[in-house]
Amino acid sequence: MAAPSAAEFARWKQQCLCATDLSRKGSIDEPIVELVNFINGQQFLFTTSSCSGRISVFAEKHKEKKKGCDWLLISHTQAEAQAVMTALCDHTGSAVFKFEPFVLHAQCRTIQDARLVHQAAIQAGFRNSGISLGNKGKVMVAIRSTHTLEAPLSDRGRMLVDEDYISYLVDAANEKLEENRRRVQRFFSNLKELLSNQAGEVQTQEVQHRKREHQEAHRKHQYKRGPDTCAAHDQEHSDDGVDLHNLFEGS
Amino acid sequence: MAAPSAAEFARWKQQCLCATDLSRKGSIDEPIVELVNFINGQQFLFTTSSCSGRISVFAEKHKEKKKGCDWLLISHTQAEAQAVMTALCDHTGSAVFKFEPFVLHAQCRTIQDARLVHQAAIQAGFRNSGISLGNKGKVMVAIRSTHTLEAPLSDRGRMLVDEDYISYLVDAANEKLEENRRRVQRFFSNLKELLSNQAGEVQTQEVQHRKREHQEAHRKHQYKRGPDTCAAHDQEHSDDGVDLHNLFEGS
Repeated sequence: MAAPSAAEFARWKQQCLCATDLSRKGSIDEPIVELVNFINGQQFLFTTSSCSGRISVFAEKHKEKKKGCDWLLISHTQAEAQAVMTALCDHTGSAVFKFEPFVLHAQCRTIQDARLVHQAAIQAGFRNSGISLGNKGKVMVAIRSTHTLEAPLSDRGRMLVDEDYISYLVDAANEKLEENRRRVQRFFSNLKELLSNQAGEVQTQEVQHRKREHQEAHRKHQYKRGPDTCAAHDQEHSDDGVDLHNLFEGS
Repeated sequence: MAAPSAAEFARWKQQCLCATDLSRKGSIDEPIVELVNFINGQQFLFTTSSCSGRISVFAEKHKEKKKGCDWLLISHTQAEAQAVMTALCDHTGSAVFKFEPFVLHAQCRTIQDARLVHQAAIQAGFRNSGISLGNKGKVMVAIRSTHTLEAPLSDRGRMLVDEDYISYLVDAANEKLEENRRRVQRFFSNLKELLSNQAGEVQTQEVQHRKREHQEAHRKHQYKRGPDTCAAHDQEHSDDGVDLHNLFEGS
């Protein structure tokens, strides 16, 4: 299960980003446009789905005995209690108030790329993040937080809580959304820093590799006048300039 | 970053399981004792922490300005509204009602082991599961669900909700706990099946490998009387009997 080649990964990326544009009703959530564009600007990464974090009221479908739900309210920015009350007006189903934190799924070319993104996420406080490894070398990283709220508001049209409680919930959710925003910023900074360090390391390795090649060429030039005793060393050095991306690839 | 050797992994496992026994105030949650013992009975896996899923009321520490919280109630089985009311009696802090689903962290020797456990978890509905890859070849898999409830009950001693709401919450949490129980069972079945298939594959590969060795010995015996033309084929075959555990190891 080898990692895909750079060309194959580029094809997957193009297919996914085009397909996503067609299927999405909306667009990238405004608070994370810059982050998503940054990730998609990396050669070996692309996002497959994301949400900046949201406050919502959703209605469970009881009558139809169907799975799924309708949203009565969705806000990706600070919410107001009055908007929740208005959303509940005339609603005869069962409504639940929710805060859902930032979530982002990114496909990565190699396990090493996924590890780097995962590290940036964990360091920013997204403790429920994790990597998954599919068939055909598909490597995904999901960035998730433990920060949630989920409180029932009404049961088949009957209100279970009063306006004061809704105000309290909305305040709590707004606080969580603000903390969420700070974490996303930390994640973005961490990611830029780790990617820049990685690029630096690769560059250093390339410089060292070129330097060694130069030294080898120089030595070989000298060997023309002496016995060729250095084959073992040549072999050793040729393995040094390893591509970081391949460190974790399977067979 | 190679996977640890079997001996090194066994040492980590022993250290962790002993340390865990000393540090834990309680013990493994009763509903998952069999599952945890099964995982720890596998040569290349061990659990580092777990919770079978629980219904709780916890009190946020406002006054002390400290992080952390005290639990007023914890139940790993079906809860009763009366117990929640009793837990809130005389409490002057801010209490939150929570349902937290099953969670389990397992350390695995190789990425391939983690992938198998992760697959069993995803197929059982634990959609927030993921793998993490630490330094020194430490491979962990976390099994997590999206199923939660988190509703504030009181604010610095002032009740925010009434008894009816608490009954409704407890019923909702009990339903989630029951669904959680079914998922844990599915995970356990999936894990046993995948591990047994893997063992079967390894066994089949070993049988095939021995069969090939026998055929090779037979061929080589014949080659004594003819030219040695088959070195390339020998080389090809010698790579076939690959250990499944090593498929994903990094360099």
